[in-house]
Amino acid sequence: MNNEPTLADIRAASRRIGQRIHRTPVLTSSTLDRMCGAHLFFKCENFQKVGAFKIRGATNAVFSLTDAGAIHGVATHSSGNHAAAVALAARWRGVQAYVVMPENAPPIKRVAVEEYGAKVFTCAPDLKAREQELAAVVAKTDAAVIHPYNDYRVIAGQGTCALELCEDMPELDVVLAPVGGGGLISGTALAVTELLPTARVIGVEPERADDAQRSMAAGHILPVVHPDTIADGLRTSLGDRTFPIMQRLVSQIVTVSEEAIVLAMRLLWERMKIVVEPSGAVPLAALLSHKIDLSGRHAGIILSGGNVDLAHLPW
Amino acid sequence: MNNEPTLADIRAASRRIGQRIHRTPVLTSSTLDRMCGAHLFFKCENFQKVGAFKIRGATNAVFSLTDAGAIHGVATHSSGNHAAAVALAARWRGVQAYVVMPENAPPIKRVAVEEYGAKVFTCAPDLKAREQELAAVVAKTDAAVIHPYNDYRVIAGQGTCALELCEDMPELDVVLAPVGGGGLISGTALAVTELLPTARVIGVEPERADDAQRSMAAGHILPVVHPDTIADGLRTSLGDRTFPIMQRLVSQIVTVSEEAIVLAMRLLWERMKIVVEPSGAVPLAALLSHKIDLSGRHAGIILSGGNVDLAHLPW
Repeated sequence: MNNEPTLADIRAASRRIGQRIHRTPVLTSSTLDRMCGAHLFFKCENFQKVGAFKIRGATNAVFSLTDAGAIHGVATHSSGNHAAAVALAARWRGVQAYVVMPENAPPIKRVAVEEYGAKVFTCAPDLKAREQELAAVVAKTDAAVIHPYNDYRVIAGQGTCALELCEDMPELDVVLAPVGGGGLISGTALAVTELLPTARVIGVEPERADDAQRSMAAGHILPVVHPDTIADGLRTSLGDRTFPIMQRLVSQIVTVSEEAIVLAMRLLWERMKIVVEPSGAVPLAALLSHKIDLSGRHAGIILSGGNVDLAHLPW
Repeated sequence: MNNEPTLADIRAASRRIGQRIHRTPVLTSSTLDRMCGAHLFFKCENFQKVGAFKIRGATNAVFSLTDAGAIHGVATHSSGNHAAAVALAARWRGVQAYVVMPENAPPIKRVAVEEYGAKVFTCAPDLKAREQELAAVVAKTDAAVIHPYNDYRVIAGQGTCALELCEDMPELDVVLAPVGGGGLISGTALAVTELLPTARVIGVEPERADDAQRSMAAGHILPVVHPDTIADGLRTSLGDRTFPIMQRLVSQIVTVSEEAIVLAMRLLWERMKIVVEPSGAVPLAALLSHKIDLSGRHAGIILSGGNVDLAHLPW
């Protein structure tokens, strides 16, 4: 897949992965609606297979491979959820997965990856070390690389989440998603723009990993520097396949503080009784800290994942 | 309501409360199915209004009052969830609620009760002190007492949970519910026996609050003694309206350790990404610790509530 995904590609991805993943529910909360002054529709990817939306893109990519392309297995680098997703998708496909993980990834995520049968390699927690280790693994195994976000098959897969959300909630005025490498937000933007042409797409990221906001302002990709944020899924830089889609279709990037992320996460747990990881709470944090005013609007919010180490909670 | 509820009474309760409460979803987990060797169907009352099934019985009782009977308000004693439920039901009805709470009730539950507009009175954490304080409140206010479980209107209301579960999952072989004062288990037993005559109803309680198991063996109510269990909703003794129903329709009472309760609670959070309170995890604890063998069976499990103080988790 060498061109930007179209809505047809996202629909094809949906058919390709639909029998394996969950069509996750859309939940509401009258308490959170009241606190934010808007009608919020939470797309619960924390209930998804492997506990995060990442299974969508990984499964679409792994099952888009030809038999010859898949036979030596698949390889990737990831801070966590994409790793588990590639591991499970590979198991579904019946091929070996090789996963490079930064040494500071949450232990719970490494365990999940290994339980799915993948071989794990650790490296220093920066993009260069990850890519070097991945190149070494590929040189040895000849595995097919499934990049965590800078891959059109992955972007199309992530777009299936917003496809479902727009089908279920056609009245949305705006859709909010977290921004890490840009796979989710670009897939979301592609789907929403086609399905709900009047709706806006807003990306939210931690202040401490504000490379998307800076990149959009600069007009070119600026890498993330020392992303010391609790939102461990959002510590990555943008890619040359996600950024142009974001430039064209994302109307705004908003940043939030660490305190706002923890507060939003805790409210989701306390009020909605659902377990959401810090990265997944980032869009709600933007609303609660008044970084966006959506008064009276219908807002879709992608709760991207729910993988949290319960022994180390941020409160 | 002076006679044991019939299925017709439970259906009437369902109509009476249906516009105000949630019809909660039934969730499944392939991981937990695999761990327990059974097909588990979790009725998610943690997603219910006030975060627990208690709103069902309280709302049915409060809206069963005549206008003259409701005019001086309603009063109750409760360790937490029933208190919030009566407070909210009273607000819906437009009357004052007076709530007696034991001084060791979780702070989060007291706050919720006050937010719903109830007046709270605290007392020592034993049944005698609760009842004395409640009598004093009623003498002063002339409020109508809504007992947390020993009340046929409350029992009929709690039965609406199993009514929904049996409607949604007619293939169930067995239904498990936690046992505190017996309101939920007796309402559940009344509904299940009528709707699924071949299904069994099993009650589960903490070893440290095993009064139901002892009472069933003795053939008469034995009070709970020093119920030092993390399952704060299950520290109460049975009542003379719940116990006869349990004797007739509950096939078994099983007890579980504190460790098993915490493990079950943590698994529900980690694997299903839902927040369940200790009392709500008690039935799953029985399966995980092999206190019941349901191999290959379809089991309904009532997750009774999700109100937890996130600042004080048991792991």
